[in-house]
Amino acid sequence: MKAYLISIGDELLIGQTTNTNAAFIGSKLTEIQLKIGRTSVIADDVDEVKKEFQIAYNTSDLIIVTGGLGPTHDDITLKAVVDFFDAELVLNEEVLADVEALFKKRGREITELNRKQAYIPKNAEPIRNSRGTAPGLYIEKDGKTFVVMPGVPYEMQGMMEKFVIPRLVEKMGGLSEFKYTKNLLTTGIPESFLYERLGNLDDLLGSAKLAFLPNQFGVKMRLTVSGDTEDDARTNLEEIEQKIRSFVGRFIYGSNGDSLEDVVSRLLIDRGLTVAVAESCTGGLISSRLTNIAGSSNFFERGMITYSNGAKVENLKVSEDLLVEKGAVSLEVARQMAEGIRAVSMTDIGLAVTGIMGPDGGTDDKPVGLVYIGICDDKICTAKEFRFGDDRLLNKDRTSQAALDMLRRHLLGISYDE
Amino acid sequence: MKAYLISIGDELLIGQTTNTNAAFIGSKLTEIQLKIGRTSVIADDVDEVKKEFQIAYNTSDLIIVTGGLGPTHDDITLKAVVDFFDAELVLNEEVLADVEALFKKRGREITELNRKQAYIPKNAEPIRNSRGTAPGLYIEKDGKTFVVMPGVPYEMQGMMEKFVIPRLVEKMGGLSEFKYTKNLLTTGIPESFLYERLGNLDDLLGSAKLAFLPNQFGVKMRLTVSGDTEDDARTNLEEIEQKIRSFVGRFIYGSNGDSLEDVVSRLLIDRGLTVAVAESCTGGLISSRLTNIAGSSNFFERGMITYSNGAKVENLKVSEDLLVEKGAVSLEVARQMAEGIRAVSMTDIGLAVTGIMGPDGGTDDKPVGLVYIGICDDKICTAKEFRFGDDRLLNKDRTSQAALDMLRRHLLGISYDE
Repeated sequence: MKAYLISIGDELLIGQTTNTNAAFIGSKLTEIQLKIGRTSVIADDVDEVKKEFQIAYNTSDLIIVTGGLGPTHDDITLKAVVDFFDAELVLNEEVLADVEALFKKRGREITELNRKQAYIPKNAEPIRNSRGTAPGLYIEKDGKTFVVMPGVPYEMQGMMEKFVIPRLVEKMGGLSEFKYTKNLLTTGIPESFLYERLGNLDDLLGSAKLAFLPNQFGVKMRLTVSGDTEDDARTNLEEIEQKIRSFVGRFIYGSNGDSLEDVVSRLLIDRGLTVAVAESCTGGLISSRLTNIAGSSNFFERGMITYSNGAKVENLKVSEDLLVEKGAVSLEVARQMAEGIRAVSMTDIGLAVTGIMGPDGGTDDKPVGLVYIGICDDKICTAKEFRFGDDRLLNKDRTSQAALDMLRRHLLGISYDE
Repeated sequence: MKAYLISIGDELLIGQTTNTNAAFIGSKLTEIQLKIGRTSVIADDVDEVKKEFQIAYNTSDLIIVTGGLGPTHDDITLKAVVDFFDAELVLNEEVLADVEALFKKRGREITELNRKQAYIPKNAEPIRNSRGTAPGLYIEKDGKTFVVMPGVPYEMQGMMEKFVIPRLVEKMGGLSEFKYTKNLLTTGIPESFLYERLGNLDDLLGSAKLAFLPNQFGVKMRLTVSGDTEDDARTNLEEIEQKIRSFVGRFIYGSNGDSLEDVVSRLLIDRGLTVAVAESCTGGLISSRLTNIAGSSNFFERGMITYSNGAKVENLKVSEDLLVEKGAVSLEVARQMAEGIRAVSMTDIGLAVTGIMGPDGGTDDKPVGLVYIGICDDKICTAKEFRFGDDRLLNKDRTSQAALDMLRRHLLGISYDE
């Protein structure tokens, strides 16, 4: 089965929007071993879209279309589908119920424009949209499969994961070749150091592949292993993963889609521990990441964003003398903040950060990128220095990651050092 | 002149790399008023590439190709160009000198593989590459223009800016039509409602274009206006923008690349006002967004993430009776939280949110997605109900956006209502 992706939208052609949908769909199809022959971007123009449908239809088995399904005048995809298949539009009660439910939930009256979105071509099966009003369309004709989805990335992604991928796997009668990919997620160690600690890669990997993909949260190692059978591939992968862990295990916080906050949350819940967070330079980002996790009220008690010195003294009982003597960005203040937030919140653990995110506020002595992270429980109360870069937003991301990793290591009893 | 962009590379098809080159080239061509008819992504396969060249050649005047020009085995673009134009490769001394100079600068010996990159088709003019070893190619034939560049974004961007764009403008005899695009950023109103409030779009727009681009933070309206002169185009755009603002002005928080936190920060700084934030359900996200702004310590005093009821009582002086009577997620508690955070922080404004982000914790009476936002200054103290969706992270984004927009409207004296 050979796939052809069509993205519709002037905003893609003129470069106002980068085509991330093609990358997402490409990677999802690749995961299920489908070959993508071609990707194209077409203007919001019915005739152009119909011509492109014909080219795709002549050369491919699976055609995936995104964009132009909204309720307004520049959304022309539905018209192109109706014309191309010469299919009339009929009201789909299931879709109408979905749209009505969505509006009811948001406490709004449904408009005529939205009600119109429940009309779909007669030859199509609707792909239900739990994240918006426009349904997707699934059409089979002459052995060819047409999938049409909205261009809004999170709506399209929901449809791909819940409907399109399972349906295609079913259609192919399951997967035939065995390849496993696992992402091992590290933080707190630069790419080149990680590479060196792994030693000779040929010895380590054999025929497997390892890619290093760095960003501000750490380095993702993508390990890809093949095998003749499913068991073979899995066993090979596990063996190599164990070797990798023997070299750099302390830096690996999770795998595949894990976020560090997922991992830390599971550890806190497993141990029945609670945490409170005092943030200066990260301005709420650490707490926001922890509360991204469903059920965070079980382990997250409160957070304080003590941006001003006054707030540090009033809310966290940091000593005014210490603030004057050492400065707000210091090892000692980070420790007192962690101690203070733990005491006022009566949690098991207190976590605190203070630092200089930039672009201004740095000195020779305390440059932009300098950060101190403190952590305290009923036995230990300590802090550690970090040095990050010049970019304010990247520094916030890096600091939040380092703080959550200190919490992870604390919970696992791993040293904070490299 | 109509353009056709071709990107070559398996990594784009399988979604390992997002096609940012197409967006960059699209925006550059749009700036000089060239129309892009189509963008495609093709596999590293000589026959496929040649077929695509033919299609582009038949339908367009300007063909821009990126990728597959490197020195390794999977770089097949040069071969496709040679075949397509039936042109022999000849050594270009200028390019050879560039490659030799680059290697000398990096202190490395030039390899045979790199020397080979100085051979270009006889009918091509080289596009010199100051950032890498592969030259670009500029070919004119039968009134059609072919531009071939490496896929490395930084190298391609240098060539576009230094060579391709100036050459195309020269070829067109300067710019003849003037086009302006402006993005008007709205929040707090769904796409379909916005559309309806604008009335008859043909009357409003004339020959201008308006596109609606929604995401969880709001709907972006992209307005594009042309004119015979630069002044004409600008005046037309301003007129239409004023009309749009007369219909939906209160929902427009900014334009082009603004974020809502940029806008709110500027308003706070202009007015010399300070704010403190009390967050329950958003868990620090609102404070984190405000502190993304450099210099936020001038207006952001502190934040409290009062996740537990205990924290609401202790830190914000919310009444325990009220929490029992109305529940933590209620209009009254949101208002008391805003009042409380303002009082303890001694700021001009207090902003507070409480809600149910999901996936759990909803009831018939108080479903997932229910949010209350409170805002207080020395004169007004009020709260408003919102209803969002099911997805926890999207709900956090939406709630933070709604809260910052309430703050914006408060600062501008605009009603909070639709």
